Amino acid sequence: MRPIDDTPLARDGKVLILAYDHGMEHGPVDFEERPESADPESIFRTATHDAVTALAVQKGPAEAYYPSYEDDVTLLAKLNGTSNMWMGEPDSSVTCSVEYAATQLEADAIGFTVYPGSNKETEMVEEFREAQEAARDYDMPVVLWSYPRGQGLKNDTKESTIAYAARLGLELGADVTKVKYPGSRQGMEQAVQMAGKSKVIMSGGSKVSDEAFLDSVRAVMDAGGAGLAVGRNVWQRQDPESLLDSLERVIYKDDTVDAALR
Amino acid sequence: MRPIDDTPLARDGKVLILAYDHGMEHGPVDFEERPESADPESIFRTATHDAVTALAVQKGPAEAYYPSYEDDVTLLAKLNGTSNMWMGEPDSSVTCSVEYAATQLEADAIGFTVYPGSNKETEMVEEFREAQEAARDYDMPVVLWSYPRGQGLKNDTKESTIAYAARLGLELGADVTKVKYPGSRQGMEQAVQMAGKSKVIMSGGSKVSDEAFLDSVRAVMDAGGAGLAVGRNVWQRQDPESLLDSLERVIYKDDTVDAALR
Amino acid sequence: MRPIDDTPLARDGKVLILAYDHGMEHGPVDFEERPESADPESIFRTATHDAVTALAVQKGPAEAYYPSYEDDVTLLAKLNGTSNMWMGEPDSSVTCSVEYAATQLEADAIGFTVYPGSNKETEMVEEFREAQEAARDYDMPVVLWSYPRGQGLKNDTKESTIAYAARLGLELGADVTKVKYPGSRQGMEQAVQMAGKSKVIMSGGSKVSDEAFLDSVRAVMDAGGAGLAVGRNVWQRQDPESLLDSLERVIYKDDTVDAALR
Amino acid sequence: MRPIDDTPLARDGKVLILAYDHGMEHGPVDFEERPESADPESIFRTATHDAVTALAVQKGPAEAYYPSYEDDVTLLAKLNGTSNMWMGEPDSSVTCSVEYAATQLEADAIGFTVYPGSNKETEMVEEFREAQEAARDYDMPVVLWSYPRGQGLKNDTKESTIAYAARLGLELGADVTKVKYPGSRQGMEQAVQMAGKSKVIMSGGSKVSDEAFLDSVRAVMDAGGAGLAVGRNVWQRQDPESLLDSLERVIYKDDTVDAALR
Amino acid sequence: MRPIDDTPLARDGKVLILAYDHGMEHGPVDFEERPESADPESIFRTATHDAVTALAVQKGPAEAYYPSYEDDVTLLAKLNGTSNMWMGEPDSSVTCSVEYAATQLEADAIGFTVYPGSNKETEMVEEFREAQEAARDYDMPVVLWSYPRGQGLKNDTKESTIAYAARLGLELGADVTKVKYPGSRQGMEQAVQMAGKSKVIMSGGSKVSDEAFLDSVRAVMDAGGAGLAVGRNVWQRQDPESLLDSLERVIYKDDTVDAALR
Repeated sequence: MRPIDDTPLARDGKVLILAYDHGMEHGPVDFEERPESADPESIFRTATHDAVTALAVQKGPAEAYYPSYEDDVTLLAKLNGTSNMWMGEPDSSVTCSVEYAATQLEADAIGFTVYPGSNKETEMVEEFREAQEAARDYDMPVVLWSYPRGQGLKNDTKESTIAYAARLGLELGADVTKVKYPGSRQGMEQAVQMAGKSKVIMSGGSKVSDEAFLDSVRAVMDAGGAGLAVGRNVWQRQDPESLLDSLERVIYKDDTVDAALR
Repeated sequence: MRPIDDTPLARDGKVLILAYDHGMEHGPVDFEERPESADPESIFRTATHDAVTALAVQKGPAEAYYPSYEDDVTLLAKLNGTSNMWMGEPDSSVTCSVEYAATQLEADAIGFTVYPGSNKETEMVEEFREAQEAARDYDMPVVLWSYPRGQGLKNDTKESTIAYAARLGLELGADVTKVKYPGSRQGMEQAVQMAGKSKVIMSGGSKVSDEAFLDSVRAVMDAGGAGLAVGRNVWQRQDPESLLDSLERVIYKDDTVDAALR
Repeated sequence: MRPIDDTPLARDGKVLILAYDHGMEHGPVDFEERPESADPESIFRTATHDAVTALAVQKGPAEAYYPSYEDDVTLLAKLNGTSNMWMGEPDSSVTCSVEYAATQLEADAIGFTVYPGSNKETEMVEEFREAQEAARDYDMPVVLWSYPRGQGLKNDTKESTIAYAARLGLELGADVTKVKYPGSRQGMEQAVQMAGKSKVIMSGGSKVSDEAFLDSVRAVMDAGGAGLAVGRNVWQRQDPESLLDSLERVIYKDDTVDAALR
Repeated sequence: MRPIDDTPLARDGKVLILAYDHGMEHGPVDFEERPESADPESIFRTATHDAVTALAVQKGPAEAYYPSYEDDVTLLAKLNGTSNMWMGEPDSSVTCSVEYAATQLEADAIGFTVYPGSNKETEMVEEFREAQEAARDYDMPVVLWSYPRGQGLKNDTKESTIAYAARLGLELGADVTKVKYPGSRQGMEQAVQMAGKSKVIMSGGSKVSDEAFLDSVRAVMDAGGAGLAVGRNVWQRQDPESLLDSLERVIYKDDTVDAALR
Repeated sequence: MRPIDDTPLARDGKVLILAYDHGMEHGPVDFEERPESADPESIFRTATHDAVTALAVQKGPAEAYYPSYEDDVTLLAKLNGTSNMWMGEPDSSVTCSVEYAATQLEADAIGFTVYPGSNKETEMVEEFREAQEAARDYDMPVVLWSYPRGQGLKNDTKESTIAYAARLGLELGADVTKVKYPGSRQGMEQAVQMAGKSKVIMSGGSKVSDEAFLDSVRAVMDAGGAGLAVGRNVWQRQDPESLLDSLERVIYKDDTVDAALR
């Protein structure tokens, strides 16, 4: 485990990752609600907000847009992903090597998805191992997207499933483990407890109302979570800055949702 | 992303790739309409036309014929491909390594096919990753043939599918992304918008009338596309030079189709 | 074979491994009986007990917690494992390389699971080979979890199956082979005989009463076994220290179960 | 492409490969007609005939018998093959590495089989790529056995299929492409035309009468083919020398079949 | 091919390998008839008999027991194997690398199994290739266990099948090829003839009477075979020495079975 508090991935020990790999995972449909969100430039600009500790993108956008933002944005290179045209067993292609991320993209941290329960679990875990060990050579923190999926899983946000997902982050050596929101503060507490020294962050998920979203963030922080990775809930909004202001208050200033929305 | 404007792959920021990998992909049937087109020599000669910024061929023709054309033709080595005798899941063999292309073929750029949606997508994307990263070592621009295919895709030229294909070029780090024509300027605009800094070019497809073909090229250029890769629409014609003259006017001189055909 | 008597893995030629990879293999459910057992810190503390010759954990807990216990605990890095969300053929991901275990985790020994009889047997045996040979370079003893599983095995604790499992440890070059308890001292004797110079230890299994558990340990020692690897039978107990005291008397002092429980 | 005219594989630009990998591909049954043909020694002797430009054998016979014939025979190491006990998809094991062929066997050229249309096509083509590129390092000409096979191919000697097979030799970078005889001079002409600078040779096939065999060779030469690879039609004959004399006249002296048989 | 006459694997050009990999291939059941045979120590002692030219064992027994016998026993490291719990297609795990066998086990020769006809044939042949080529670097003779198996083979000791198996040893570059006894001297003669310079030895098989066993050995020697690899027929006997004495007379002194048994 690499303590992240002294890395740019954290601010006061908290984490807010702006996630923007939807162009790969979901395609243009995710940009329809706010067309300018298709332009990586606009997202890189949004990522300069003080609330954001890192921007997670695939290799291509990093390569094309990051050079202009190196001073203002912390880059988390997402190293695997799959299009949703993929009809096979839950899986993710390794789209970028750690060495390339470190030396060519000048990334500060890496992100990697594993789908426990998929028939590709063993393969993905081994790919994660290689990435995790290589990342240590470059002293880059490792964030695991730990998303149980597959034939044996009827409900992938059950508390016990999320707790297991969080524990796998600890077992596999992730510095930060990103899990789906299990629906309650209590569920998040269990996940945090299971992850031990691996920090747990919530995955933002699809867009909901400001209040509902901030409520879940508040619950995550109260449960001892380290923060969240948010995508559509920020950049599908007409005014992303405003939500980031609110998130800043909830995450770093410990404000209530009411106060943060005021 | 490697800006291509200062590379021989582009002329005034525009791209016209003469594609000639049909001997591998389709076999002799594609040469029947104009038998002399079976001879790579004739195609290398055609590629010396000023309108052509690069010639895309497989390893073998490059190895055998390029030495005589090194001064007059820009070589894009197509690094994967499959015969159409292949009955398996959409896939493509890697037929040439990047190192071989760079040092033995003396290629100026590389081309690589990925079939998103195929059950080989994850494998192909990983092969593309290796090629893309290796190409950077030789400073060669990377062109992605992004062709959605497979069981989940009923229509592979739907606008949303082409837009997704273009976006994947950006996400994966292609400098140029080649997509099929989505049937309209508006569809192409969406693709161009989705690809961000990755330049989008149209795939020429099977032979149509001069006018119909130039109309689609005009639409591509008007939509902000960078150009096209054309094969059969040039070398299946009795007078390839003449069509290349017209293409030169549409692509580089911004002429109308009518003017270009005059 | 690497004689283990002069390594920290053994005490007077006997072995008591505290196994704690259940967070990966079974998930949080194993910690429910005694919630503080979810915290690796508490287990590392328990592992400082004189009876324990090594603590077996996955990469993550080793990375995060071992640095504070390097002087007091012998680390056995478990190099493969799988979540129980996995529905495929019995298999195990390689979660840590030998080099990483030796140089980054500063492990003293390695552990590796093989499932003979699984359709992944050949693959797992080859992964074990690589780990075993690499471990020799670092002079780390190798412990094989030899667990027959798969379609051809109706009963995986049959005496003949356990004896075969123990023999495979010898054949494959394990220094210590961990097998399930075959139900009797006689069964264990056969296993010990089959393993030759490869030391045999019993796998603790799920929690049973103190007496029943110590009876089986006594039988293992009397059968010529080298000791055991115990997990839930220690850390699911309210008073792990007390059972470790008893184990110390049975294993190292050759006491009867009655004496050890007094 | 490596021009072969200045290599020992060619004589006056023509090629006559004596093929002797039947022990692997077909087994002892092929030697029944003439039992002494089972002895590689007798075939190496036959290969010293002036008409023969190279002898194609697998690694083992090369290793065991070639040392005595290095001065008199040109060795073409066949690098892959399969027994006919194989019941799987058309495929071929790589039985010898290029480096071994070059440095240990002291081979002068390499041979490699690909089955386009097989579900192993992509894999075989990639193995061919590696062999082809490695062979360049040793300046060894590359001969491709291009044999379409598999579920989609009802007739593997159809003219269009043979023409495609020949073209693939050019596309993949083979210096010489060996195809089955398409049944007519016209079919062979098409194949030769499709292969461009890759020389086309005919595969001898199973034994037929002297006249029928020489007729097909004459047709191949007249069609612009570079020669043939012949196995059973030579060494299953009671008097191999005599047929080689005739072949010499047809191939190198441009004689008619009648003249050659006189 | 590496002539073996000047290596410790041969005595006067003859070979008698004591095979003891049954603990891996069959498990403890093979030791039941004579329980002390489970102890590798007893087998290493038996292998010091002058009749024995090499002892074939897996990595583990070599590692654990060979150091005390280095001066008196020639070690043949068997590099692959599988438990009989394996229910998949005939296959064999590579359990030891050639480098490890040469440098750590200090083996004098290597052994490798291939199952022609299995759906794993291509894979096994490629693993054999790697082992064979690596063994050359250490100048270790290579013994191939050539055992046709799989769906297409109804009878794996048919004369033509054994002859093909022997031929594959020659084709693949084995110095010695071990085949099952085809049931007659004539069948063995055919195998020997097919193998050319690759020496053929008989596989001992399951235990039969002294006389029956020696009769088959006599037939093998008379057929031109180089000897045999014997396991259970020696160490399942109450008096292994006595049978080895008889084998010595048959193999090296050319005695009749009657004389050898007297």
